[in-house]
Amino acid sequence: MSDDIILGPNQYGKAEVRVVRINRDTPVHEIQDLNVTSLLRGDFADTFLTGDNAKVLATDTQKNTVYAFAKSQGIRTPEEFLLALARHFVEYPEVEGGRWSAESYPWERISVNGSAHEHSFVKSKQEIRTAAVTVEDGVEYVLGGFKELTVLKSTGSEFHGFPRDEYTTLPETHDRIMATDISTRWLYTDHTALTSADFDVIYAQVKQAVLEQFASVHSASLQQTLYAAGQSVLRAVPQIEDIRFAMPNNHHYVVDLSPFGLDNPNEVFEAGDRPYGLMNASVTRASAREKPEAWKWIAGFN
Amino acid sequence: MSDDIILGPNQYGKAEVRVVRINRDTPVHEIQDLNVTSLLRGDFADTFLTGDNAKVLATDTQKNTVYAFAKSQGIRTPEEFLLALARHFVEYPEVEGGRWSAESYPWERISVNGSAHEHSFVKSKQEIRTAAVTVEDGVEYVLGGFKELTVLKSTGSEFHGFPRDEYTTLPETHDRIMATDISTRWLYTDHTALTSADFDVIYAQVKQAVLEQFASVHSASLQQTLYAAGQSVLRAVPQIEDIRFAMPNNHHYVVDLSPFGLDNPNEVFEAGDRPYGLMNASVTRASAREKPEAWKWIAGFN
Amino acid sequence: MSDDIILGPNQYGKAEVRVVRINRDTPVHEIQDLNVTSLLRGDFADTFLTGDNAKVLATDTQKNTVYAFAKSQGIRTPEEFLLALARHFVEYPEVEGGRWSAESYPWERISVNGSAHEHSFVKSKQEIRTAAVTVEDGVEYVLGGFKELTVLKSTGSEFHGFPRDEYTTLPETHDRIMATDISTRWLYTDHTALTSADFDVIYAQVKQAVLEQFASVHSASLQQTLYAAGQSVLRAVPQIEDIRFAMPNNHHYVVDLSPFGLDNPNEVFEAGDRPYGLMNASVTRASAREKPEAWKWIAGFN
Amino acid sequence: MSDDIILGPNQYGKAEVRVVRINRDTPVHEIQDLNVTSLLRGDFADTFLTGDNAKVLATDTQKNTVYAFAKSQGIRTPEEFLLALARHFVEYPEVEGGRWSAESYPWERISVNGSAHEHSFVKSKQEIRTAAVTVEDGVEYVLGGFKELTVLKSTGSEFHGFPRDEYTTLPETHDRIMATDISTRWLYTDHTALTSADFDVIYAQVKQAVLEQFASVHSASLQQTLYAAGQSVLRAVPQIEDIRFAMPNNHHYVVDLSPFGLDNPNEVFEAGDRPYGLMNASVTRASAREKPEAWKWIAGFN
Repeated sequence: MSDDIILGPNQYGKAEVRVVRINRDTPVHEIQDLNVTSLLRGDFADTFLTGDNAKVLATDTQKNTVYAFAKSQGIRTPEEFLLALARHFVEYPEVEGGRWSAESYPWERISVNGSAHEHSFVKSKQEIRTAAVTVEDGVEYVLGGFKELTVLKSTGSEFHGFPRDEYTTLPETHDRIMATDISTRWLYTDHTALTSADFDVIYAQVKQAVLEQFASVHSASLQQTLYAAGQSVLRAVPQIEDIRFAMPNNHHYVVDLSPFGLDNPNEVFEAGDRPYGLMNASVTRASAREKPEAWKWIAGFN
Repeated sequence: MSDDIILGPNQYGKAEVRVVRINRDTPVHEIQDLNVTSLLRGDFADTFLTGDNAKVLATDTQKNTVYAFAKSQGIRTPEEFLLALARHFVEYPEVEGGRWSAESYPWERISVNGSAHEHSFVKSKQEIRTAAVTVEDGVEYVLGGFKELTVLKSTGSEFHGFPRDEYTTLPETHDRIMATDISTRWLYTDHTALTSADFDVIYAQVKQAVLEQFASVHSASLQQTLYAAGQSVLRAVPQIEDIRFAMPNNHHYVVDLSPFGLDNPNEVFEAGDRPYGLMNASVTRASAREKPEAWKWIAGFN
Repeated sequence: MSDDIILGPNQYGKAEVRVVRINRDTPVHEIQDLNVTSLLRGDFADTFLTGDNAKVLATDTQKNTVYAFAKSQGIRTPEEFLLALARHFVEYPEVEGGRWSAESYPWERISVNGSAHEHSFVKSKQEIRTAAVTVEDGVEYVLGGFKELTVLKSTGSEFHGFPRDEYTTLPETHDRIMATDISTRWLYTDHTALTSADFDVIYAQVKQAVLEQFASVHSASLQQTLYAAGQSVLRAVPQIEDIRFAMPNNHHYVVDLSPFGLDNPNEVFEAGDRPYGLMNASVTRASAREKPEAWKWIAGFN
Repeated sequence: MSDDIILGPNQYGKAEVRVVRINRDTPVHEIQDLNVTSLLRGDFADTFLTGDNAKVLATDTQKNTVYAFAKSQGIRTPEEFLLALARHFVEYPEVEGGRWSAESYPWERISVNGSAHEHSFVKSKQEIRTAAVTVEDGVEYVLGGFKELTVLKSTGSEFHGFPRDEYTTLPETHDRIMATDISTRWLYTDHTALTSADFDVIYAQVKQAVLEQFASVHSASLQQTLYAAGQSVLRAVPQIEDIRFAMPNNHHYVVDLSPFGLDNPNEVFEAGDRPYGLMNASVTRASAREKPEAWKWIAGFN
């Protein structure tokens, strides 16, 4: 080619490998339910430029590896499982790095006559757990996270004192509904110091800290609540150095009932679909160096 | 017109009115979160045939009525709220009947330092509650229900003994994962004998009975589990005369790991999306007369 | 059992079998892209009551049959293909009837240098074609249809003259946007008189008639447009005896720009999501007997 | 605070403002149908840290501005409209930059008696057009794009010569279906040299070039097709310096019909849902400097 066209940044792999792993070592079964995506980065220009696939580890092979590892390594936590996959794939000479990510769906035991059943489960859809491992230049980055944790407070939220320009019609309010779907990802400082069980413990800590701040902070803005949540997590969990949020503001509009001779002191609301406020923000430690590599290709968080 | 074209069965109204009702009579707020649809049937041929809207109660008016009633009547249970709407609308001379239905989204209180918060909630997405009231020929029919309750058992399910024709390749199995998303609707025998609180009590009874049967029945087929669930409900709740289910069979495929030198004794599964088994069935009392009016236009249940 | 609990109406089968059939008899390939659901009705009480599967044609077998028939019979039109499946399954002694339905996704040829490519296609998503065959008491019923044909007219629509009660706030309008997603199903009078090609011809006729009426009728209500569309179809296509519509009224709200010193003579609209108007109606021939069997379990149309 | 917790990168605004703009200057109406998101970046730490909103331009104000501009500026192309919004918002002292993005939904005129109707439209859902304008450090970056253009070729695609490790089971193939949903974004080199009409012309050029390459390239891998498409665009459109793709490999599996005594020479396929291959790649000019600012927060493209 005489022109100066070149291949830029790229990655490829298999997305949304749905693996359910049952541990049936005892009659009390355990379940792990993941949706895994494996994306490789490295020396793959040939297939783009000439169609030569000699270096292309097939995406089907990546899928098979997920299933084989689910058996041979087991799945204790999403983070540990993704690290095992990452370390396997970077052994290939043409693989320079990549990203291995998962959604994890929590299940609870069904209660029968007050006892937790040994092998029957009901899906808890309160939130979806997420995890991602990125390898770049030989360094591993581990993100924990969750998404779609829907919360609402019926009072204890205000919004006023904002500037008014020619396009501003929003009235100030000292009492409103605040509602959002919390999506968050956090970066572990030194994941090699953590056991698989630690990832579960920290996950529960983060979720509880975020829920408690949402409930407890008398909020002047969704931003303030977000920051308080991030701060609370970083104070409680020294193993996290950066936590990011993507949060819509799910508007609830006070319905005007005056045409019907009714007042409406924040009792009847229309739950809106679109538009919604949207906020992305990171809460981080000043002492930590920035690590953009950890957040690359993480949709909605970079 | 010289031809013999006529208007057939019809209904119209406002769909998916999203109403959130906060009861703030005390500092401990209560929340009801509904998605309401109002559909009227009656003497509405004129607007179809000539565009004369003199009898057409505007769908916008139906929406307003939902919001006004949320204030003036309050919302204790979806069933009671829909009955109030139904009885209001059938007062109009041109309204002969209709259907008022709702989805109801459950919320739990956020726990802060171990205590349930007074006005902060997290959405429980385990299932969506449904309700529908139909009025036809002056008779009210009330359906309770829920949908998308996702369950899975990792053993205790078999499927064998089925006929084998020229297109049958499925092996018999004596141990498989059984998983489904339970959607159900049930018909109350005499809803006028019930208080609003009764609808909540019975809802909890039905959900628990269905979950317990799913967990406990050693299942030879999803059909057997469905019937056992229905039977259990009818035995436990005399106020219900007919319960119907729509349930997919969410297939989980045992992954063949033998190419990788691994056995797989029901430990690693691929969770399938499509296709899925699908089953619709009613469990009913022989003594009850059939009431097809109750199930008209109830998508997936008639 | 001493109680009077019995099994009510039921059906079972395999849903959403995704079959793509390429006809490659010549270098100019043809594509049929279907999503097929097969549901059997008949003598299947045993599996519900006792778990005896001796009569249960496995849903996996139904799936296999779809794929085998795609090869052995080919797919010319969805209607013909579903009829072939229906006639096959009702041969089984335990099968008394059932419903075989499909979505069909249209593809267009990609144009390369102005010529239609022989084997490369782009998916036309304007609407989804639907078809359903029901067999009950030895009678076949064939429904054609489509869904999600989204249309909008920016003028030529009014809504006024409706009654005003205490909950009415909607202003009368003599010029508004009218928009909807047209879903329709129609019943063929005597499908045995039709060739496979006829189903395609009639499909195109119905779609064009509906689009033309939507565009041409100066509309006093969405109901009037709906009826005109149905009437036009029945007049143009003698082989159809009943056509039903499910149509939302996709509201477009005129935005109040007066706070910004701007008028808005129907130029800037907010497209609403929820709530929306909803209308179901049948346009039929007075001379045809009612055939509720044709519409059973057709979600949204009965 | 004594700890070292700080606010990291952040942005906020209003998402999914649904604006429909009708140009009714003549009886031949024109329609623009956008879904606009406005996200501001700048000096907004106060609201996070203390709840002081004095600098927070309300998201409601951003929404109002979208609607007001739709009237006062009109909407000719999404790119031009977003540039107008961007230039307005960066005038605020606290706004240092941001991202203004849109989906744009194409509509076609309904044909009545062979003529294009003046004010009645049918939605063409073949693809969704996208656009994004980012401002950072006083520099504007403009991305054109589209998503969900679904294509399939029934032959002319191979995949072989890939390495085989212990987890590889995929057979080599010299004839397969290749199918994908094309999502692409491209960066304009110097958008200030372009008129609003140019954006439409280039959009059509890119779409056609991508479709033609998909159809024409005898493909050894989806990567090869992607690169050919990007190269073709860059050769045809000098105003673009970087084009990126996110493309799934929508697998179509040849169904094994041998148990039924049928061969299947690439005629009957199962269209898979998950997992799917996934590929992200950029095709760019070697002479252009990298501009990561343009791609920040563009989900799936960075």
